[in-house]
Amino acid sequence: MTQLPTTPMPATPLLDKVTFPDDLKKIDDKDLPQLAGEVRAEMIDAVSRTGGHLGAGLGVVELTIAIHKIFNTPHDRLIFDVGHQCYPHKILTGRRDRIRTLRQEGGLSGFTRRAESEYDPFGAAHSSTSISAGLGMAVAADLDGKNRNVIAIIGDGALSAGMAYEALNNAGALDARLIVILNDNDMSIAPPTGAMSAYLARLASGRTYMGIREVGKKLTAYLGKTVDRAITRAVEHARGYVTGGTLFEEMGFYHIGPIDGHSFEHLLPVLRNVRDNAKGPVLIHVVTQKGKGYPPAEAAADKYHGVNKFDVITGAQAKAKPNAPAYTSVFAEALTQEAGFDDKIVAVTAAMPSGTGLDKFALAHPKRCFDVGIAEQHAVTFAAGLASEGYKPFAALYSTFLQRGYDQVVHDVAIQGLPVRFPIDRAGFVGADGPTHAGSFDTTYLATLPGFVVMAAADEAELKHMVRTAAAYDAGPISFRYPRGEGVGVEMPERGHILEIGKGRVVKQGSKVALLSFGTRLADCLMAAEDLDAAGLSTTVADARFAKPLDHDLIRQLARHHEVLVTIEEGAVGGFASHVLQFLAEDGLLDGGLKVRPMVMPDIWMEQAKPEAMYAAAGLDRAGIVSTVFKALGQKQDIGLGAAG
Amino acid sequence: MTQLPTTPMPATPLLDKVTFPDDLKKIDDKDLPQLAGEVRAEMIDAVSRTGGHLGAGLGVVELTIAIHKIFNTPHDRLIFDVGHQCYPHKILTGRRDRIRTLRQEGGLSGFTRRAESEYDPFGAAHSSTSISAGLGMAVAADLDGKNRNVIAIIGDGALSAGMAYEALNNAGALDARLIVILNDNDMSIAPPTGAMSAYLARLASGRTYMGIREVGKKLTAYLGKTVDRAITRAVEHARGYVTGGTLFEEMGFYHIGPIDGHSFEHLLPVLRNVRDNAKGPVLIHVVTQKGKGYPPAEAAADKYHGVNKFDVITGAQAKAKPNAPAYTSVFAEALTQEAGFDDKIVAVTAAMPSGTGLDKFALAHPKRCFDVGIAEQHAVTFAAGLASEGYKPFAALYSTFLQRGYDQVVHDVAIQGLPVRFPIDRAGFVGADGPTHAGSFDTTYLATLPGFVVMAAADEAELKHMVRTAAAYDAGPISFRYPRGEGVGVEMPERGHILEIGKGRVVKQGSKVALLSFGTRLADCLMAAEDLDAAGLSTTVADARFAKPLDHDLIRQLARHHEVLVTIEEGAVGGFASHVLQFLAEDGLLDGGLKVRPMVMPDIWMEQAKPEAMYAAAGLDRAGIVSTVFKALGQKQDIGLGAAG
Repeated sequence: MTQLPTTPMPATPLLDKVTFPDDLKKIDDKDLPQLAGEVRAEMIDAVSRTGGHLGAGLGVVELTIAIHKIFNTPHDRLIFDVGHQCYPHKILTGRRDRIRTLRQEGGLSGFTRRAESEYDPFGAAHSSTSISAGLGMAVAADLDGKNRNVIAIIGDGALSAGMAYEALNNAGALDARLIVILNDNDMSIAPPTGAMSAYLARLASGRTYMGIREVGKKLTAYLGKTVDRAITRAVEHARGYVTGGTLFEEMGFYHIGPIDGHSFEHLLPVLRNVRDNAKGPVLIHVVTQKGKGYPPAEAAADKYHGVNKFDVITGAQAKAKPNAPAYTSVFAEALTQEAGFDDKIVAVTAAMPSGTGLDKFALAHPKRCFDVGIAEQHAVTFAAGLASEGYKPFAALYSTFLQRGYDQVVHDVAIQGLPVRFPIDRAGFVGADGPTHAGSFDTTYLATLPGFVVMAAADEAELKHMVRTAAAYDAGPISFRYPRGEGVGVEMPERGHILEIGKGRVVKQGSKVALLSFGTRLADCLMAAEDLDAAGLSTTVADARFAKPLDHDLIRQLARHHEVLVTIEEGAVGGFASHVLQFLAEDGLLDGGLKVRPMVMPDIWMEQAKPEAMYAAAGLDRAGIVSTVFKALGQKQDIGLGAAG
Repeated sequence: MTQLPTTPMPATPLLDKVTFPDDLKKIDDKDLPQLAGEVRAEMIDAVSRTGGHLGAGLGVVELTIAIHKIFNTPHDRLIFDVGHQCYPHKILTGRRDRIRTLRQEGGLSGFTRRAESEYDPFGAAHSSTSISAGLGMAVAADLDGKNRNVIAIIGDGALSAGMAYEALNNAGALDARLIVILNDNDMSIAPPTGAMSAYLARLASGRTYMGIREVGKKLTAYLGKTVDRAITRAVEHARGYVTGGTLFEEMGFYHIGPIDGHSFEHLLPVLRNVRDNAKGPVLIHVVTQKGKGYPPAEAAADKYHGVNKFDVITGAQAKAKPNAPAYTSVFAEALTQEAGFDDKIVAVTAAMPSGTGLDKFALAHPKRCFDVGIAEQHAVTFAAGLASEGYKPFAALYSTFLQRGYDQVVHDVAIQGLPVRFPIDRAGFVGADGPTHAGSFDTTYLATLPGFVVMAAADEAELKHMVRTAAAYDAGPISFRYPRGEGVGVEMPERGHILEIGKGRVVKQGSKVALLSFGTRLADCLMAAEDLDAAGLSTTVADARFAKPLDHDLIRQLARHHEVLVTIEEGAVGGFASHVLQFLAEDGLLDGGLKVRPMVMPDIWMEQAKPEAMYAAAGLDRAGIVSTVFKALGQKQDIGLGAAG
């Protein structure tokens, strides 16, 4: 890491008086802008030391203060969609003393989290869940006969996801007392896509902010006489033409805004009025600026969405010097290269062009790259449609987000045998983002599907081979997973090779112990083999490459000619190991007493930590492999291991 | 089955001249109503003999004829959403000769299917996929520079699903040449729910059908000068207020309608005009009547959505005399009973109130039953919101549809440890509905999640116990699966018992062979045990009840005291057996040479057939179990099996 200068802690006299939202209620409205400034300073300082999400939180400082000032949290429920904009909220809800532990091992989560605070009534990290959760809470309050406000804050980008629409559709029909705040900063992670964001831009640009007087009048006219709401609506809809309200009004919401999300003069009266008068679902359209109040963030294209540690004065971010290219880059470059040879190759991303590296692909092949917005379901079936016409779509998603499109993977891709390619980024542990972002289940939920080809790259050169292999394979769906972070520094081929489907490889031949790796744990297998060899246990190391179809010949050989067979993968139970065990059992290869030990992720939700610490805790490292072998053999582990080195 | 009178085949002189859509083009427009009548007669006759989906197909006869008359299928792509309304389409596209094999083993699928015909460019069965697939095809045509129409027909019910919205959002932004026909019959399977359907009702009722003249004028004004489209739009939006179009116009679609979907005078000119002039995405709002033209269907509340064989004259459906109550009913009655004891119990369904039995629950507890529409993602997170407030939600879905909410199960329920209960209906083979509806993967994709309790009912009494167990269990998420169809006729308890979490049971004690069942294959295990005992192989039969947490004591006992251990489940690889094998391997229980044989569904997409035939083909029946044991023991199977009986 480059060294950053140490900046003095910011002066925060007003914020120092605020530990919980109750303290906030004692502060005069006119002093709130100063408080907002101090919250910003505190947040910028904290994130400069920890890294994390910066731009999103800076955009909602006033909104967060205003909500906690007006509403009675935690009795009233406040739900942040995604949750990466919750740092100001954490500062104001009793967690300021730990704000500099954000995303560190044992520290605060970078997202909202039920286990962390009663002020976080619903955890998040994936997008677009807040309206559904909030509606559940609002209905629960109704059933309980409790007078409770439920507020969901959702960004404009998150509105492109279908589940947000499903929730709006249901909320409008249920007529539950739910307050949705649309935080419109015209920017999700990437620039916005989709008709909805164009629509919001029209709404926001077509008229200036509503004046307070106008807002007040509108509110009184509607909310003041809610008993007549049904009548009012009927009249509205009869007027001239059947339709004519905003899209949210058509969905059954009372729609206020757009209002200025950085102006307490806008926010406070509107929130007060909604709190005191709203009966049914209300949507408040608030316009904010991502990165607000920190010039380097305001000026950056991505508004400092996610940052490393940085220098507060200059905004310069610390950068680790990479030893090897990141897997994401290797994927993007390899796909760009292959697309140069084959004009049927197209790429699909769901609002993650830079996270998946497809922004680079788009530079070279702009007409063949499709960012569909936060819409994984559609992304998968859209890709299936392309495949049905002879195209070769690569639907690049993170492991954890592919879960959103699982039924589409099953129903539209796998059952039809369509050759959609699934590059699966962030497979395995992801470090600071914690359990919500871990890619633990993809091998399990994909390899169970008939006809699917499921690969994992052992290193960055293998990844390059798999990109080419997937491009060449046209007989059905195919996936390849690779982890977050950098490769291991192997020599890279000019171009990937086409791998034989269902064939693994022996990397090192031994005779007593066999280590069968699926994915990047191969490097630790090789180091463990050194230790085992040194202890007199001659060790074979193999790279399975495929969880499906399995390399039966390879597995038979390993099973027949070794006393111990260890499988290892960076995934949960039900994946690679399960397919190996199923085959071994069906084939009778276990009947002779083979000592088989499947090493998978532990069956817990592992908390945020540095990746190496996570591997150690999971036992999926050099030391863990060696220890597993010794235990299998019933031997005491009496050698000094190189694992610490 | 009750016997039905045989009806003579209908006279269809005009239809007899039509085998493929090309033949249709020779028929005069004025004769099309007669043809529609003949298609209806043919379809009614066919379904009266096979059973299947009736109401949906009857509603789109004119629309299907009109599309094949105007468009150039299969070069133009016609996609039916869900696909259960495709019987008229099959009759008109070379499959009339097999129409009386619908949903039978070896016969036509009840849905569209790529493998069946080039006129089915994209298969379906789950709802709301057509716009995504169509957009992929439209983009492919653009990339290819091909002049091709892509038409997606989607029902109003299917529009409540988020993925349809994701696709509209993307299509509106991409401005691709895609024709979406909204088939609005105000009825999905159940009566419609959600703000969207209320909105559509307003659209359809607020004005009468547009006159042909009016439609023509509107079409010319817009579509005739598509170069000025951007300008036209800008002018539109500037007019008076920013918004004001229909919701579909706001999403970037040119919106025509509503028009009468049973009038060729409406359909033909509109479709012709769109074909010849449309450039960007178009939505044609067509109003139809489900069950149209068959009085018994028109009069029925569910419009004969899915029917058994029936008498064409009276509409009376054949009914099998059940030997035991259906699992669905047992679940619904048990939950209704438990909800009488505990007012925190609430139920959530996604547009399947009768399929899940929750319509019965709603009669007893109307305020505690929520039908959210076809919106599984929202259903799961909505339930999570209810659970976060101390309610006990039962989110009742079919196994295959729960896939739609998988990420929500992981992210909103499991990671947060929220006690959402998942009754999983239609788990396992489903017979005539085929591979798209099979419930094969739920155990795999749920049991891999840390902290999840995963149960399967061995019979209908067990199901009743599991309903009560799930109601009582409040420590985290819990699921219980049960198959389509009837129970086995066991005696039913007055009320379910609370089962001990993670404990299975030995049903029959033996000494050499152990059969460990998860779910309703238990009955076949008991019969197989008779055969094995008779052959001198003393057999233990156990019911695991839980795939997670596993009953380690039970499994240890079975492994240590038997020579062969067979697991059996009605699910794909990666599920129950994988968890058993993982434990056996980790615990060293395989080191002694236990002959373990995991019996799971074969790794293929199994085609529609009668359930018993599917069990036999899968080897998951009495004979298959016996044969597996003999093979494991290396013995010739020389006894006469009772399996045939």
